[in-house]
Amino acid sequence: MIKTDILIIGAGPTGLFTVFEAGLLKLKCHLIDALPQPGGQCTELYPKKPIYDIPAYPEILAGDLTHRLMEQCKQFEPGFTLGERAETIEKQEDDTFIVTTNKGTKHHAPVVAIAGGLGSFEPRKPLIHNIADFEDRGVEYMIKDPEMYRNKNVVIAGGGDSALDWSIFLSDVAANVTLIHRRNEFRGHLDSVEKVQELKNKGKINLITPAEVVGIVGDKSVKAVVVKQAQHIEKEFEIECDHFIPLFGLSPKLGPIANWGLEIEKNAIKVDNALDYQTNIPGIYAIGDVNTYPGKLKLILCGFHEATLMCQSAYQRINPGKRYVLKYTTVAGVNGFDGTRKEAPKAVVKAID
Amino acid sequence: MIKTDILIIGAGPTGLFTVFEAGLLKLKCHLIDALPQPGGQCTELYPKKPIYDIPAYPEILAGDLTHRLMEQCKQFEPGFTLGERAETIEKQEDDTFIVTTNKGTKHHAPVVAIAGGLGSFEPRKPLIHNIADFEDRGVEYMIKDPEMYRNKNVVIAGGGDSALDWSIFLSDVAANVTLIHRRNEFRGHLDSVEKVQELKNKGKINLITPAEVVGIVGDKSVKAVVVKQAQHIEKEFEIECDHFIPLFGLSPKLGPIANWGLEIEKNAIKVDNALDYQTNIPGIYAIGDVNTYPGKLKLILCGFHEATLMCQSAYQRINPGKRYVLKYTTVAGVNGFDGTRKEAPKAVVKAID
Repeated sequence: MIKTDILIIGAGPTGLFTVFEAGLLKLKCHLIDALPQPGGQCTELYPKKPIYDIPAYPEILAGDLTHRLMEQCKQFEPGFTLGERAETIEKQEDDTFIVTTNKGTKHHAPVVAIAGGLGSFEPRKPLIHNIADFEDRGVEYMIKDPEMYRNKNVVIAGGGDSALDWSIFLSDVAANVTLIHRRNEFRGHLDSVEKVQELKNKGKINLITPAEVVGIVGDKSVKAVVVKQAQHIEKEFEIECDHFIPLFGLSPKLGPIANWGLEIEKNAIKVDNALDYQTNIPGIYAIGDVNTYPGKLKLILCGFHEATLMCQSAYQRINPGKRYVLKYTTVAGVNGFDGTRKEAPKAVVKAID
Repeated sequence: MIKTDILIIGAGPTGLFTVFEAGLLKLKCHLIDALPQPGGQCTELYPKKPIYDIPAYPEILAGDLTHRLMEQCKQFEPGFTLGERAETIEKQEDDTFIVTTNKGTKHHAPVVAIAGGLGSFEPRKPLIHNIADFEDRGVEYMIKDPEMYRNKNVVIAGGGDSALDWSIFLSDVAANVTLIHRRNEFRGHLDSVEKVQELKNKGKINLITPAEVVGIVGDKSVKAVVVKQAQHIEKEFEIECDHFIPLFGLSPKLGPIANWGLEIEKNAIKVDNALDYQTNIPGIYAIGDVNTYPGKLKLILCGFHEATLMCQSAYQRINPGKRYVLKYTTVAGVNGFDGTRKEAPKAVVKAID
């Protein structure tokens, strides 16, 4: 059982900034995310794209935003349960909560902050009748640990940035990489398309287009995929492989959270905007893109504010009756849980003679 | 008469970010500030001090924060009325507002956003009986334009960073600089104290400590100050000068805004937190440290959120009935009023052969 003060569902920008604000209040956080790394859609969907409306950043790449937020909160040593989806919540007699993931990992906390963005990202799956039999047995829809593919034979399907970028990355790791796409044209960063062209020319990526994977062959695990080429509709052939990785995009689903007894409106969780972003269940808050209230804007900068106010309310719940006086970081500094301290250089008092 | 869409009272971080968010909605902004430069207290009081709780900035100097915000909003060409204090507001028959400063500059806008922080900064003044007679006639409590002092004889009084830093700066501009402080010890950045010591040793700053300016001599303008040295209580002497600049600190006062008919609570303006940070007068909003509502935190990051929601409401007021659809900057880019455009590199669609 993982124990913490604030259990955060979702490790996107809002969740990560919550760790920092909670830390200033000496509250410890643990984050659960279905994705294999922190950053939410900023990291998973558009790490190389610029965002222009983060305050005081005329431009920042979504991936860099994640790195900065991780750097800012690391003093407060957040815990992470990654690649697992928060599935069930049980309120305890003492008004604390136990949240269990789809892999069975249990987390216990007096406060739950749902910072789930648009929901947990679920992969779009190819229509192959027996694909479910091979999930986690050679079929993966997301790459969690690239080392898993070292010296293996890998088939990737897809025509976007994920398919391009992972083909490039794994061409240095796997024994061989085959990239299959139903068109000749790929849609992605020019750099990525050109790099795949170059690796194909060097024989480091096998490219099969236009073509589709239409079947999977194997017993307990993937042994081969069945490929159908568009030019030769009648002709199907097998490619031996250890892994088949269809990268057809991710789409967010509110998922199991929708069944937690929270008031839902337009696929988002209703909260008390006027005070602390608490849901209809005391002790469960919803912050960032996952919540809704009159005038709500689904912007990262709003999530930062909501996280900050929520932490104050969480502090009161965890320390009933204890008075909290806001201290400015410039004046009071920041004391990390890891023993580090940040503080402004002190003014000196010094005679001039 | 200066005309604009949103007239912002206060050019601190919240006011500057309002320019950016308004610009995304194609609304033009003009800012009034009593201080001679944008940035509010970040620039005036602690430009070299680090802030640790700006989201995604593990550390940023307050002065740099201002520079970044200015850079971010410059595409939207804000206007500025600096060194003047917003004094009166008159609601017009068409529900627009005219705001006049203490210098008589008039501004006309359908929306007024008060982002006045803790108030306008008023200087602490030395107790010299006739000092008011010389204000703007050789006595200045803030340095608005250093060029004013070129080749002049200047006396600065004070013992903190402002007195130190302006003595250093003006030692290169003025004919001569005398720094007077009632103690031998100065309180400030070590660098600044050491630099003044060095300039004093070189004869570039005349230092008189412990001493006080107790009188001003002059007719229409300052001709000299009367100085009393602590060691020789009986001995007073005159120093000829063109300017006397007492830098004894600034303290914020809500000031004339307190008489605008707005609901005030604990020296702050009450707003509708649940929706759009509007005050009791429709069309006048209060954002950032100047406002109050249940759960209010006087943090810069909260001002950013409040500014953003306020702009949406202002948009509705200025464009009644017009529907606004939020566009993400990453997707839609940013079109400046200056003709510049920022946008994410487009994905290419390109065949690999």
